[in-house]
Amino acid sequence: MHDAVEVIVAKRDGAALSDSQIDWVIDAYTRGQVAHEQMSSLAMAILLNGMDRREIARWTAAMIASGERMDFGALSRPTADKHSTGGVGDKITLPLAPLVAACGVAVPQLSGRGLGHTGGTLDKLESIPGWRAGLSNAEMMAQLEDVGAVVCAAGSGLAPADKKLYALRDVTGTVEAIPLIASSIMSKKIAEGTGALVLDVKVGTGAFMKDLDKARELARTMVELGTDAGVRTTALLTDMSVPLGLTAGNAIEVQESVEVLAGGGPADVVELTLALAREMLTGAGVTDVDPADKLADGSAMDAWRRMISAQGGDPDATLPVAQESHVVTAPSDGVLARLDAMAVGLAAWRLGAGRARQEDPVQAGAGVRWHARPGDVVTAGQPLFTLLTDTPERFDRALASLEGGWEVAAPGTEVTPGPLLIDRIA
Amino acid sequence: MHDAVEVIVAKRDGAALSDSQIDWVIDAYTRGQVAHEQMSSLAMAILLNGMDRREIARWTAAMIASGERMDFGALSRPTADKHSTGGVGDKITLPLAPLVAACGVAVPQLSGRGLGHTGGTLDKLESIPGWRAGLSNAEMMAQLEDVGAVVCAAGSGLAPADKKLYALRDVTGTVEAIPLIASSIMSKKIAEGTGALVLDVKVGTGAFMKDLDKARELARTMVELGTDAGVRTTALLTDMSVPLGLTAGNAIEVQESVEVLAGGGPADVVELTLALAREMLTGAGVTDVDPADKLADGSAMDAWRRMISAQGGDPDATLPVAQESHVVTAPSDGVLARLDAMAVGLAAWRLGAGRARQEDPVQAGAGVRWHARPGDVVTAGQPLFTLLTDTPERFDRALASLEGGWEVAAPGTEVTPGPLLIDRIA
Repeated sequence: MHDAVEVIVAKRDGAALSDSQIDWVIDAYTRGQVAHEQMSSLAMAILLNGMDRREIARWTAAMIASGERMDFGALSRPTADKHSTGGVGDKITLPLAPLVAACGVAVPQLSGRGLGHTGGTLDKLESIPGWRAGLSNAEMMAQLEDVGAVVCAAGSGLAPADKKLYALRDVTGTVEAIPLIASSIMSKKIAEGTGALVLDVKVGTGAFMKDLDKARELARTMVELGTDAGVRTTALLTDMSVPLGLTAGNAIEVQESVEVLAGGGPADVVELTLALAREMLTGAGVTDVDPADKLADGSAMDAWRRMISAQGGDPDATLPVAQESHVVTAPSDGVLARLDAMAVGLAAWRLGAGRARQEDPVQAGAGVRWHARPGDVVTAGQPLFTLLTDTPERFDRALASLEGGWEVAAPGTEVTPGPLLIDRIA
Repeated sequence: MHDAVEVIVAKRDGAALSDSQIDWVIDAYTRGQVAHEQMSSLAMAILLNGMDRREIARWTAAMIASGERMDFGALSRPTADKHSTGGVGDKITLPLAPLVAACGVAVPQLSGRGLGHTGGTLDKLESIPGWRAGLSNAEMMAQLEDVGAVVCAAGSGLAPADKKLYALRDVTGTVEAIPLIASSIMSKKIAEGTGALVLDVKVGTGAFMKDLDKARELARTMVELGTDAGVRTTALLTDMSVPLGLTAGNAIEVQESVEVLAGGGPADVVELTLALAREMLTGAGVTDVDPADKLADGSAMDAWRRMISAQGGDPDATLPVAQESHVVTAPSDGVLARLDAMAVGLAAWRLGAGRARQEDPVQAGAGVRWHARPGDVVTAGQPLFTLLTDTPERFDRALASLEGGWEVAAPGTEVTPGPLLIDRIA
């Protein structure tokens, strides 16, 4: 058979790993027979020397084979899912899942909690009183058949090799390897068993990928992986230099999502929700329904209410509100010229909306509201940001994060925000 | 301060590490605050992205600072040492240390045991009844003053960071990084406190470095490191495509070394011993003594006998002899055209002269004698190799190792062996 040094040396010296080397190393690592220090050295060699399409596909397949696979073949509807690489104010899953369900496609969204400056979908939904993220496979299937949409925590049975490898990459400087990022995301999505998938690959200051070429390479790699595995996969490259919508936090993002489901909400959130919904519907073979109609006629809101209720949540409950707030006002008349996603994300995180360590709690009411987007006219003294937290000692560090992250230009200055949808990869 | 991921990411992305990053990471790794999986990922990034001269010097200094330093300033004689990167039949330390001592320069040789196909100097000397490798620092100083030469085991106090890092590199595919090889060797030699140093950098099939350019780079890097640390350092690049002398093993190499000290022995062993002795004497500032005279007049042999006796060995004792032998004869009349160092080294190792794991014992009498060197005329049926072991079940695998490692060409074939001394780097 193989041994760890042989596999490491092959990749170190620029070779493509064989199928058998890849299968062996993932299996042996999962079983603890390849040590962490060997896998981290291999991960660094992969980061610096790359992997070709066959290697990445095999690596992904080996991670899928390390755990269980789900199967939605028994459902009466086609399935489609969405994955975002993470951004600030990215609440899109909340309106998107019920919207697509209202269009006749089942959405089995296995989601995560946030870490660092980007929020987590489950953290946001957990601000709804009574709502629970943990479902058994049987509960998930029943809810998909009945409601058509589920957003719940991924069980530990899917791609356990990925879980172990991700924790290792996090502490060894090997997160930023495109083959490893792509296989990490896609192993879980393929194992989850969705029929179609749209990837929202964020690019910009607030995104994991700051660079358009790298984001495009990641998107293309993941689309290839999904396609090779029989999942109808497309990707949208979307802007994350500016945060999405007008809120970053937990309960305040739920509130904004409900506004979208009610037919209102910020234009960029609506635009991205509809664009992703159309990709999912096309992937699932549903071409005769316009999701904009389902927002307008209230059926998306209806699906939302049933989705929340099915998981124990009360869609009519009052959402938690932060105990303290602090307002930042515009220093002069003018035009908001810049609003930096990373600065806003860090501020929301420091206010308590996010966590620094996996085991930390989050504050349901904490976060940041901004009252203008780039290009908007502002007047001296009007609120620009409202900072929200239960622990006011956090305001200072949050304000420090915001500093330099926005700019009011002279009245009449021409400010043209870049497009939200940058590219589509299929 | 620093953290491990920051240091790894800097090297991963091609930056030069700062002095403070290097000091921190070596110290934190020694104390267990940087984990093995972080150091192995950093080692792979160093292997693939390199380090510049300042970084390597600082890395070496940090490893030295992790332990104690020796000081021979109180000796009445200058000091000089030799390090070989390891080869097959490389017994040079045995005649060299007493020879240089006989010329008036003290030789404080801290040596190691063998692992894999290259033998270890201590393993060879331990075949002499009574001889012991472990000396206290005080015993070592007294013997250097009295006899002028010591070959003993390195204590665990010198460069403990190197010991920990070397064991890690061995299992993570990161041995072959020139900055790490050079700093590993030089940290111990500089901490040992020698005034002058000659490096015997082997190149060829039986050496760690198979490639001349790589060997030259390693030699240059080590010479720079020594020079920067105030040690007068030179390097010889020497051939290791053919094994040295006519023996590879333990007791049989001691026997061959004694022949050299008696004024005889194989020409290549004599040539290399004298070349290295001249480098050490020059480095130590002794220019008026010709070491060839000290071989001829018996004073080197005298120093050898006193060196062995001082460490409990009996220079007149009968050396252990293997219980079993097997002879390989020449298949035809002709000229020995090729004798591969790696094939001979593996055969000796498999016969029991070397070890597979650090804790394995070695057989004092085991090894390989060859009865011709490339260019020598041979006649059909004459012995070419004598294989020696106490455990005859090892003959089969040893013979398999030899197979293809030698070749008898037609009588009259012109065979011109390459030079032993390839280059000198100062």
